[in-house]
Amino acid sequence: MSKTIKTAILGASGYTGADAMRLALRHPHLEIVALTANTHAGKPVGDVFEHLRGLDLPDLVTLDDVDWTAVDLVICALPHGTTQATTKAIRATNPDCVVVDMSADFRLRDVDTYAQWYGIPHGAPELQGEAAYGLSEHNRDGIAGAKIVACPGCFPTAALTALIPPLANGHVQPDDIIIDAKTGMSGAGRGLKQGMLFSEAGEGTSPYGIGHHRHMPEIEQELSKASGQAITVGFTPHLVPMARGELLTCHVRLADNVSIDDVRTGLVERYADEPFVLVLEEGQIPKTQNVRGSNMVHIGVFKDRLAGRAIIIAALDNLVKGSAGQALQNVNIAFGFEETLGLEQIALFP
Amino acid sequence: MSKTIKTAILGASGYTGADAMRLALRHPHLEIVALTANTHAGKPVGDVFEHLRGLDLPDLVTLDDVDWTAVDLVICALPHGTTQATTKAIRATNPDCVVVDMSADFRLRDVDTYAQWYGIPHGAPELQGEAAYGLSEHNRDGIAGAKIVACPGCFPTAALTALIPPLANGHVQPDDIIIDAKTGMSGAGRGLKQGMLFSEAGEGTSPYGIGHHRHMPEIEQELSKASGQAITVGFTPHLVPMARGELLTCHVRLADNVSIDDVRTGLVERYADEPFVLVLEEGQIPKTQNVRGSNMVHIGVFKDRLAGRAIIIAALDNLVKGSAGQALQNVNIAFGFEETLGLEQIALFP
Amino acid sequence: MSKTIKTAILGASGYTGADAMRLALRHPHLEIVALTANTHAGKPVGDVFEHLRGLDLPDLVTLDDVDWTAVDLVICALPHGTTQATTKAIRATNPDCVVVDMSADFRLRDVDTYAQWYGIPHGAPELQGEAAYGLSEHNRDGIAGAKIVACPGCFPTAALTALIPPLANGHVQPDDIIIDAKTGMSGAGRGLKQGMLFSEAGEGTSPYGIGHHRHMPEIEQELSKASGQAITVGFTPHLVPMARGELLTCHVRLADNVSIDDVRTGLVERYADEPFVLVLEEGQIPKTQNVRGSNMVHIGVFKDRLAGRAIIIAALDNLVKGSAGQALQNVNIAFGFEETLGLEQIALFP
Amino acid sequence: MSKTIKTAILGASGYTGADAMRLALRHPHLEIVALTANTHAGKPVGDVFEHLRGLDLPDLVTLDDVDWTAVDLVICALPHGTTQATTKAIRATNPDCVVVDMSADFRLRDVDTYAQWYGIPHGAPELQGEAAYGLSEHNRDGIAGAKIVACPGCFPTAALTALIPPLANGHVQPDDIIIDAKTGMSGAGRGLKQGMLFSEAGEGTSPYGIGHHRHMPEIEQELSKASGQAITVGFTPHLVPMARGELLTCHVRLADNVSIDDVRTGLVERYADEPFVLVLEEGQIPKTQNVRGSNMVHIGVFKDRLAGRAIIIAALDNLVKGSAGQALQNVNIAFGFEETLGLEQIALFP
Repeated sequence: MSKTIKTAILGASGYTGADAMRLALRHPHLEIVALTANTHAGKPVGDVFEHLRGLDLPDLVTLDDVDWTAVDLVICALPHGTTQATTKAIRATNPDCVVVDMSADFRLRDVDTYAQWYGIPHGAPELQGEAAYGLSEHNRDGIAGAKIVACPGCFPTAALTALIPPLANGHVQPDDIIIDAKTGMSGAGRGLKQGMLFSEAGEGTSPYGIGHHRHMPEIEQELSKASGQAITVGFTPHLVPMARGELLTCHVRLADNVSIDDVRTGLVERYADEPFVLVLEEGQIPKTQNVRGSNMVHIGVFKDRLAGRAIIIAALDNLVKGSAGQALQNVNIAFGFEETLGLEQIALFP
Repeated sequence: MSKTIKTAILGASGYTGADAMRLALRHPHLEIVALTANTHAGKPVGDVFEHLRGLDLPDLVTLDDVDWTAVDLVICALPHGTTQATTKAIRATNPDCVVVDMSADFRLRDVDTYAQWYGIPHGAPELQGEAAYGLSEHNRDGIAGAKIVACPGCFPTAALTALIPPLANGHVQPDDIIIDAKTGMSGAGRGLKQGMLFSEAGEGTSPYGIGHHRHMPEIEQELSKASGQAITVGFTPHLVPMARGELLTCHVRLADNVSIDDVRTGLVERYADEPFVLVLEEGQIPKTQNVRGSNMVHIGVFKDRLAGRAIIIAALDNLVKGSAGQALQNVNIAFGFEETLGLEQIALFP
Repeated sequence: MSKTIKTAILGASGYTGADAMRLALRHPHLEIVALTANTHAGKPVGDVFEHLRGLDLPDLVTLDDVDWTAVDLVICALPHGTTQATTKAIRATNPDCVVVDMSADFRLRDVDTYAQWYGIPHGAPELQGEAAYGLSEHNRDGIAGAKIVACPGCFPTAALTALIPPLANGHVQPDDIIIDAKTGMSGAGRGLKQGMLFSEAGEGTSPYGIGHHRHMPEIEQELSKASGQAITVGFTPHLVPMARGELLTCHVRLADNVSIDDVRTGLVERYADEPFVLVLEEGQIPKTQNVRGSNMVHIGVFKDRLAGRAIIIAALDNLVKGSAGQALQNVNIAFGFEETLGLEQIALFP
Repeated sequence: MSKTIKTAILGASGYTGADAMRLALRHPHLEIVALTANTHAGKPVGDVFEHLRGLDLPDLVTLDDVDWTAVDLVICALPHGTTQATTKAIRATNPDCVVVDMSADFRLRDVDTYAQWYGIPHGAPELQGEAAYGLSEHNRDGIAGAKIVACPGCFPTAALTALIPPLANGHVQPDDIIIDAKTGMSGAGRGLKQGMLFSEAGEGTSPYGIGHHRHMPEIEQELSKASGQAITVGFTPHLVPMARGELLTCHVRLADNVSIDDVRTGLVERYADEPFVLVLEEGQIPKTQNVRGSNMVHIGVFKDRLAGRAIIIAALDNLVKGSAGQALQNVNIAFGFEETLGLEQIALFP
């Protein structure tokens, strides 16, 4: 396989696109040949992301301007609902091109569930079956051969990394899972809303999407698969005043005769060889500031005061392991590169 | 009763003491005659709290310097474990003096529970029985006649305000209550810890006291009282990067045949005449930035995706309704003043 | 004069409007009878400012819906350029109505200077002569009799409070004044811009309007008046990641034979009886967190390392003393009330 | 020269030490063989910096535990005043060892000036002459052959990068330079002070060290050298509520017949081939959020409203280009590596 992967990044004017550029630029085998942002076409990237000024990047173009036959890899950071048609177009022109998608468009295997939660019919149902779910640590074989990789949502990445092993091990009960999530403001995207203004979001904590956030069916799909039974979860996200970072507090019930140590040991064993998952020792606490800017997930397991219950906590950077970092990790898997390539950055603290 | 209440504030170098000074200074019937801060005795208040420079306040003195016979009211902002002895000394000298305490020293009715959770024996068990629990909206009669008022902790204030009515109404099940709490950094006090430095706490979310926070037995004591049965709760607090504010997300199970609307209506009816509790309409979301600096609690009730479950959310300012504001509200009750006196400040937003 | 002033607040959906509502609601002699916000007409205020939910406020209406004959006072928080016409309309209908304007529309006495800096001709030049410049401490006589009060901009309020006395005293040279300003994000208003999003503005400091900010001619107009000669200033504002607060660092050159102590003493004497200006003692440092939410200005005077130079620093809350608070102070002056009425709030710290 | 440089990092429990570890760990030719932190000796690094958990790093030891003969490179992040003796000890044992120091101990060439500003006599005056001032872009030749590199302070790095070319070009007048600086809280170090607590530093801007900050003589030393005449500067730093980042606003007077464009062009030409300095185009504004976590300096030149004056603005990350990043850049120069090695990280935005 060629050592230089000609890469297009679609949707380069949003945050996940920006982080994909940031990481891809320093990946030794990727060459960025096209960047799209329809409403900013013609501009240098530095005009929409000033921190990328002075770097060697092509100017922004529209989707229509990209010659799909000239790219080996497309990293999609388009809004939900627009990637299905684009992927179809790419596939029609260049069937060998690998599409690594950070939107939700190919995450849900059931197209009816997609239509129900996203409010529009699936635009490429014939391709859905080909899409590999891109939770890197749990689907390497699927990703390795795939031409479409559907990278998980940021919340699902954290939830699944924390909960799949205990469920697969039978350590926690599948019918009583309550996930209380906290996310930084970049998780809400770059769209202009009053509640996202510094003056209004700062110094405040606010729940949103209570009882109906779109990451729920995705979490349930994968947890159900891992546990072999239909799982429904409670999921309540909150915006907290930080730019990056996500912390999930999973309130679960232990299976009979299972201890906190069992749960932790199960996680430790599952992730012992994983470079991007760290299961903390007893008493160590996951914090978003410890993973900021890195591709790491930190996981901790705690005894609840309620008998028979545990609290499993996961922290990650929503724009890295929660999107662009995991996307690049999947690129590495898909193209047979060392999996950590371009992702070695240590968390930026303080 | 005299219209001018001679007031001492003890522990004036901490955050709750500071907010007590801020509010008491503008209360029409309180006259601050003494301020204590043992390690800063002799200094003007403006040296330990620069925002109080230029105001008409007495210099800081030690506890020993206060003439208890010259005060009608003591507002205690001392560290946990030190107020019991002080209260005893006050009572011995001036039995008519009203002590409104913001520490945990008189909150737990059972002295053994106190000893267990705070690690020291209760220093004034003979006075415990006289202490009225100062959850203003739920114990006015007790507070009105009391010489010792034990103001609730910040988390208990939010939890109890949100959960007592549904429990008392039989709307939620008492054996499955999970409280996921988020608090601003001032909740951790003014002590010097690396994790509280701006550079380390900023841009981060971190859980703490998981499974063993001292506000649990207090929440349980009062919920048990309200529901008439022993209640144990799950409680997991998180530090989020804001100075003030507290948001509690209570994951509860509905009683049979009870709807979300029933729960909300029960709360609306309970608090209809309360000036400091606002039960939000369907779809309106409690946010800490909407109550910052005010004595308000905002409560919202939401349908969970999990069948038969509800999410009850409460937001307050931990230093106002969560401590100094409620303390002043209790002063108003204890001295027979209009309950809103000195507490009319509207939230500071943005 | 009537004790109840029927008050309309125009532009109630912006930050200065919000703070005007917050303060006016607690003013003992103001009754809010109308609130306008053209694009939100028909909504309750709580829909555009959630922290005002549950308060006794009229719903929002359009400007056209207000009966000017039914109001004694109009507090204007409209965008620059729209208040002149509105004031004309109010005057035509109700000549006794007092208009206290927080926009820039009547601040510049020279209508050509207005046109040059604001890019549009003055819409009510015949009224400009009647407008009193609302720097409360320096123009009480003018404000007392005025029907139009032009409240100063936030930066001018800080700059003028700090610099008028030294200039009037001949303590600093008028031809070498460099003002380096730092402001919180609310100073940029509630308009939706990417740079104001929490994720982009947080953790960052950025200058703006370098060399051409509209507050310059206003500062120069008033400094020139105070010193009796034409003054030009250097002025460079910076956005810093806080919601409220403004700090001006004025780099000035001392007049011959004038010491730092002379400058400070001059300021102390000038403001000795002013409730809202505190000149700090030697070594005490103005900080925005010490005046947040209050109507105070803190001023400090410091020796520069450069021989013959001084640094005069002023801190205030841009939404209070910098706009709505000073507006209310001017209302008090205009209507003959105690000047501190409704403005006694102590800074909210932490 | 060996491709593997055995490296000790001294003072690994502070912020500059942490960033040195973060960067050195990913440098292809550095091997970290020793980490010191006297008060934490015996602990794993992850106990003092949780974001470094799970990485391959030696445990912390005391200074006395390090075998200087076994190291090729020492990166010093010790407190000011302690590095001189340590360097002496290193030199006595291993004269070939390269010491790259991030403290102020070897920055001032005149030992009397050192004693005057730091309050203690210089501890190794005989070594001062050997120390190369580590402003990478301006002293490559000196650094290349040096065994001691005195890395500049964070403020001097920004000030000198912005002002040396205009002074050397004769574009700005040397006798009227006023530097108004803004820094994130990490610039104040990891020491425990109340003013650094999140609750107190957040939402606030505060000047400090007004007229007497220790970076002044350092800036003056290098500007004097560059311009060939003694220069004194005004320098006023401010703390703003962000963890990282520094912005310097330099208010200068143009030389006769010099235009803004001349100044900018002079800077552009000087830094055209520099990978870590970007001179922005007209109208583009330096902002700290655009360089966070990177080794870049952004510089902009602006016309002041005051005739004949310019405003030169520089932004950098105080912990990267302002300390650990530039230290590593100097390591690259000293050891003959590609200068960008280990420093390619793009700014983390948002």
